[in-house]
Amino acid sequence: MQTKLDALKQTMPSLAVSTQAKDLQIYGVDWTGGYQAAPLAVVFPRSTEQVQQLVHFARDAKQALVPSGGRTGLSAGAVASQGEIVVSFDKMNKIGEFNSSDRLLQVQAGVITQQVQDHVRAQGYYFPVDFASRGSSQIGGNIATNAGGIKVLRYGLLREWVAGLTVVTGSGEILQLNQGLYKNATGYDLRHLFIGSEGTLGFITEAQLRVTNLPGEQQVLLLAVPNTQHLTQLLVLFRQQLNLSAFEFFSELALQYVLTGKGVAHPFTQSAPYYVLIEYDASTQAAQAAALQVFEQGLEAGWIVDGIISQSQTQAAQLWSFRENISEIIAAYKPYKNDIAVKPSLVAPFLAELDTIMLNQYPNFNVVWFGHIGDGNLHLNVLKPTTQTQDEFIHHCQQVNQAVFSTVKRFGGTISAEHGVGLLKQPYLSYTRSAEEIAYLKQLKQVFDPDQIMNPGKLI
Amino acid sequence: MQTKLDALKQTMPSLAVSTQAKDLQIYGVDWTGGYQAAPLAVVFPRSTEQVQQLVHFARDAKQALVPSGGRTGLSAGAVASQGEIVVSFDKMNKIGEFNSSDRLLQVQAGVITQQVQDHVRAQGYYFPVDFASRGSSQIGGNIATNAGGIKVLRYGLLREWVAGLTVVTGSGEILQLNQGLYKNATGYDLRHLFIGSEGTLGFITEAQLRVTNLPGEQQVLLLAVPNTQHLTQLLVLFRQQLNLSAFEFFSELALQYVLTGKGVAHPFTQSAPYYVLIEYDASTQAAQAAALQVFEQGLEAGWIVDGIISQSQTQAAQLWSFRENISEIIAAYKPYKNDIAVKPSLVAPFLAELDTIMLNQYPNFNVVWFGHIGDGNLHLNVLKPTTQTQDEFIHHCQQVNQAVFSTVKRFGGTISAEHGVGLLKQPYLSYTRSAEEIAYLKQLKQVFDPDQIMNPGKLI
Repeated sequence: MQTKLDALKQTMPSLAVSTQAKDLQIYGVDWTGGYQAAPLAVVFPRSTEQVQQLVHFARDAKQALVPSGGRTGLSAGAVASQGEIVVSFDKMNKIGEFNSSDRLLQVQAGVITQQVQDHVRAQGYYFPVDFASRGSSQIGGNIATNAGGIKVLRYGLLREWVAGLTVVTGSGEILQLNQGLYKNATGYDLRHLFIGSEGTLGFITEAQLRVTNLPGEQQVLLLAVPNTQHLTQLLVLFRQQLNLSAFEFFSELALQYVLTGKGVAHPFTQSAPYYVLIEYDASTQAAQAAALQVFEQGLEAGWIVDGIISQSQTQAAQLWSFRENISEIIAAYKPYKNDIAVKPSLVAPFLAELDTIMLNQYPNFNVVWFGHIGDGNLHLNVLKPTTQTQDEFIHHCQQVNQAVFSTVKRFGGTISAEHGVGLLKQPYLSYTRSAEEIAYLKQLKQVFDPDQIMNPGKLI
Repeated sequence: MQTKLDALKQTMPSLAVSTQAKDLQIYGVDWTGGYQAAPLAVVFPRSTEQVQQLVHFARDAKQALVPSGGRTGLSAGAVASQGEIVVSFDKMNKIGEFNSSDRLLQVQAGVITQQVQDHVRAQGYYFPVDFASRGSSQIGGNIATNAGGIKVLRYGLLREWVAGLTVVTGSGEILQLNQGLYKNATGYDLRHLFIGSEGTLGFITEAQLRVTNLPGEQQVLLLAVPNTQHLTQLLVLFRQQLNLSAFEFFSELALQYVLTGKGVAHPFTQSAPYYVLIEYDASTQAAQAAALQVFEQGLEAGWIVDGIISQSQTQAAQLWSFRENISEIIAAYKPYKNDIAVKPSLVAPFLAELDTIMLNQYPNFNVVWFGHIGDGNLHLNVLKPTTQTQDEFIHHCQQVNQAVFSTVKRFGGTISAEHGVGLLKQPYLSYTRSAEEIAYLKQLKQVFDPDQIMNPGKLI
């Protein structure tokens, strides 16, 4: 093993390399949990050319590389547990030129997501991809997993905000993809192939990100909903009449954890089985009036039993906190997380079937539901009971996966909506992608990474 | 030759096949012009399964297939001039279910673009991909070329409106890609690989299209602009303050052709070298007031010398007609069309350099400029002088291409913004894509179409 590292240091004397136990531990895992860090080393390239040299070295040495951003992933896509060299983008963290005519920001892969948001906001623009891990995640990792989050309903996935990419393929070639153009009809769009490829075809080293106008004033509406049937009806109603930026949902149990954990009062005098949080454009009086009217329509139809409209930005933030604090609060219970999605029209029957499975398979477990229901994305979190060890619990959960994923498949859904596949979901890929598709994915991997050195074992 | 067709008829007795001279002529070419139709036959499958059978037959027989939609393409992507079998989607023209909860319309590939627009509009929704050939082009061809058009600034390219695809690959496999989901982070997105692939990897047979809310009232502003420098300045100014759906441009010469051709009066008392047409959301009084204010800012800065704001939908259509009639009117002059793009910030220097090239290389030719300048897309049309034959003219234009495309390359632009590559641009692909990229494109083609039977000779 030592010989390989010596060779690397000799080949790339200016490359920062760490083999300190602390670094190996930190850079060997991500937020997924349940994996042992065991990388050979961690390296910190400073340029695309250094990444290219690394790939050339790795090809010669048959040495696996694992890309490492903010390591906030939840599918073990950045785990290095088999003697891989971790390629950290921490030192490729420069924000480059912002061009307001082109609405493009040039960044290196290691820039933190929130820094992108803040940087363009200071110049009067908006980068709309947003999620809870914004303060830690890096833009390269976001792109490699085609990040989603809380604003997908209006702004789409990260894919739509990437105008150009610089990548180093597994063959060691540097590709400049799409060069920041809006329109470019010159053959297969390799940019889109790399977005969401989880570092298995090559590593993203730089990007040109698109931005948009700052949104006007947003209002938030929290609704108490008696029945899953009404979730889709409310989505159709509100989406037709208002300009929505979020349509989120959580169960009473999820809310209870937040209320207890944060020591705050229940927002409603009477609890309901489900809650919907809607954020919408309220920059004109007409839009605010329309929101009130739609809310009343929902009440009259019996689809809502109660509701709160934010009267200030403070209150809007307060209403959001019920939804946004769920993940943090339940983290203490080591939840087994599922990130699944179906078409919005199928949410009610899908929830009903899964609730039955949960009741049968986890009779004594607490199951917490929340998610971005406007785009059909549900986060199903099973909390570990204190009576089980972590290993027993995970083993139990994996047994239930088959029933859950079979249901997902039957509903034409996906086993990973926005968390990627990584190591965690790799055994279940066939529940969403057909055998023919998976065969093609493998052939594509072979085209770009003929020596299988780029994040091997992940995704496929 | 006859033997092959007999074999096809025997293998697929229910497949509609034509070898009539008229059909061979019609289905052998597209709107590009300058190519001779010479297909072996034209076939009209009625289902994805029939397309699959055809591909299996073609693999066995080593018979090239050319997909055929509305044949409105301008890069000869649907030309069959070498004994290919043309696969027309005319009989796969069924509009399927529309689901308002999912905002998805199921269509077969042969549905006309305008039928999609009309079908969802009747139900209160909007399909925003729009362009001049909407009444003839088919949705399968639109997807195969990732169609753009006049609303890209607000709504993006067709890519963003495709939630699911059914394709038959060159290996004869049927793939159901993404199944209409919003979010699906389960590996390489083959859907995006097929969008814009011009039928060279496989044929698109069905699609799930996304729709959105109908837009509110739109106003149109026609501006007289003294100088190309101001084009980008105006784009930044208007885009920051208003919600734009179009930012189009044309030259005085382009306008003159329309005025003469349509027998209408000049919209301004004094002509200007350039005109910009802006369409924006004016559904509230606040938005209308903002538009007036921005217009005045532009006047004060000297970026605009005159302007007209539409006061009605009729007047809006009238202002649009100056821009929209250009292509039709100049068609009589057999223009040599270039569909190029650079980043919006580079439009002024790019136009200046191209004007110099045009002046040097076409001193006696009329060069008509127009385009979707908000996304950097310029249509450079060179009109055939009556003194040259069509062959002489095309030969002359091809000689100039090298200078034009070298300039495009130096500006980091593209030789095809929205018209695709087809046969016409194939020799020039290296001006936009690197040698390494082209090598990958060829390998991807090999993966999906190992026998090189799917639209061979096109794109790469």
